[in-house]
Amino acid sequence: MSHATARACANLAFVKYWGKRDASLNLPMNNSISMTLDAAHTTTRVEFVPGLERDKVLLSERPARPAFARRVAAHLDRIRSIGGSSEAARVNTHNNFPAGTGFASSASGFAALTCAASSALGLQLSRRQLSVLARLGSGSACRSICAGFVEWQAGRDSDSSFATQLADPRHWNLVDVAVLVTDEEKAVRSSDGHQLASNSPFWQTRNQTISSRLAEIRQALLERDFHRFGREVESEALEMHAIMQTSGHENGGAWQSGIFYMVADTLQLINAVQRWRQAGMDVYFTLDAGPTVHLLCMEDQVGDVLQAVNSLEGSQGWRTIVCRPGPGARLLPGRDSD
Amino acid sequence: MSHATARACANLAFVKYWGKRDASLNLPMNNSISMTLDAAHTTTRVEFVPGLERDKVLLSERPARPAFARRVAAHLDRIRSIGGSSEAARVNTHNNFPAGTGFASSASGFAALTCAASSALGLQLSRRQLSVLARLGSGSACRSICAGFVEWQAGRDSDSSFATQLADPRHWNLVDVAVLVTDEEKAVRSSDGHQLASNSPFWQTRNQTISSRLAEIRQALLERDFHRFGREVESEALEMHAIMQTSGHENGGAWQSGIFYMVADTLQLINAVQRWRQAGMDVYFTLDAGPTVHLLCMEDQVGDVLQAVNSLEGSQGWRTIVCRPGPGARLLPGRDSD
Repeated sequence: MSHATARACANLAFVKYWGKRDASLNLPMNNSISMTLDAAHTTTRVEFVPGLERDKVLLSERPARPAFARRVAAHLDRIRSIGGSSEAARVNTHNNFPAGTGFASSASGFAALTCAASSALGLQLSRRQLSVLARLGSGSACRSICAGFVEWQAGRDSDSSFATQLADPRHWNLVDVAVLVTDEEKAVRSSDGHQLASNSPFWQTRNQTISSRLAEIRQALLERDFHRFGREVESEALEMHAIMQTSGHENGGAWQSGIFYMVADTLQLINAVQRWRQAGMDVYFTLDAGPTVHLLCMEDQVGDVLQAVNSLEGSQGWRTIVCRPGPGARLLPGRDSD
Repeated sequence: MSHATARACANLAFVKYWGKRDASLNLPMNNSISMTLDAAHTTTRVEFVPGLERDKVLLSERPARPAFARRVAAHLDRIRSIGGSSEAARVNTHNNFPAGTGFASSASGFAALTCAASSALGLQLSRRQLSVLARLGSGSACRSICAGFVEWQAGRDSDSSFATQLADPRHWNLVDVAVLVTDEEKAVRSSDGHQLASNSPFWQTRNQTISSRLAEIRQALLERDFHRFGREVESEALEMHAIMQTSGHENGGAWQSGIFYMVADTLQLINAVQRWRQAGMDVYFTLDAGPTVHLLCMEDQVGDVLQAVNSLEGSQGWRTIVCRPGPGARLLPGRDSD
């Protein structure tokens, strides 16, 4: 019996991954830049069991939904094919944050799964190999392999599309105050949204201008230029949502002119951030493909930002998670790793 | 003593006017298409008074704010210069709908003012001349001169930039159920927003694609093809808001990454429309530069649409105005026109 447990953090993209060059290989249209988030992580135990008929996947101790279980099994197949194994596995995974609300649980999940499963099979994979593999499970999972500040190279093919560290977690005391405004699951899954991006009339323009945005954000991050960084990151998030909101498509037999991942409270918070900044507070926001608002500030502003959030009408129903630059995916010691 | 009273309706754009080729002349980047709205109108009495020292402007019987009064006086100057007059005027204007909430009160207001003032000075102006003049007061006012379904020709210069009727009010029983979700005034005035449009990375793309959108919407309207019309109109509104939301600029010393005219309730309603359509209801939406959601449906659906709106959480604070294709700007008879 071989098993291993791994933990990987979610990550927050400053330059977004939206739209794929190759959907089956999760090859992105552009490089993306992210921060690995210390406070939001997935812990996954994988145990290959001789004689087990098929993979069993538990999420928070309960049988996972079939669609998710199939995705996990397909990912295990990739790793088994490398390891020359055909044993089924018991997978036990849990997130310390709610899924489906803009915190990319698939990123931390597939990063942890990749680490745990490859280790349980005795594979000695490099970070690069882990990142490529994790990407095949869920695109942005490749970034969660690395610690701190990370860039995912779009690459030319599967082997050249992986994440590397731009700067380690101690490089910059940037904080993400994530405000989870709702527990509702989003109406359009990211994987569908990716495919609809090219329906936007603005899609080509985005692809033409993204390289200069990447260069700006990379440089501002490396130079720790908070205001330049914040401006670019905020504009980038709104640009991605502009693409989403103009990705017209048929949905359930009816026309949908765009995808809205924002909900009412998202908009309320965005507007508040703009007011707070006018009042002199150093805070910017970004959004993923979900309603969660990620407030970006320096360490010494966290208290003020939390106070400002909690003073907003409707904030009683929100949850905040304060995230700092976190570690990459790693194996956990413990009673399981005998 | 010469006076006249005129009434003009607001109008709802299906292809939007956003961004100017010439800000002082209100020359737009592109043609726009609208419906004149019967239920939302401005009534304006203009009285030129010998010996009156300066123009006096009352809005709903109260002195108008100085900025608005100056705009009215500047418009009167244009009309006085044509009429060879130098008499100051008393202007008494009122809207039957709230101002500053996405219902374009400046459109109906400057259309009514143009009609009343030119008539009070004894000028016999053609619809085209009235439309050019109204445009100089407020761009979209040129459309409110005409009845029913209207197209504003961008034109080459001031004299060639005016609105004409595409179809009269009886052409199509299209209804605008306007849902006014808030009375708050918008944070960024339209005149400022127009100037910021070119800050959007998507601005050029919009200008390149707008002519095909115009052709689609014009044809769908003339053929009374409701679903094709609705899809295009909804996409057009979201495209304009995508431009707004990516028009980054400095505001009050702080960076603002985009302009949000939507408020939380706007977003709630937009999402509801998409659900209603999936449930089989024939309804689309459009938005102007404000939080008001304009629900578009055919006459026989108005009851269902109103019922659906009123069943939404939070709808107690909203007001609905049901608008049908309306008349152009016209003089009102009455005790004043002696």
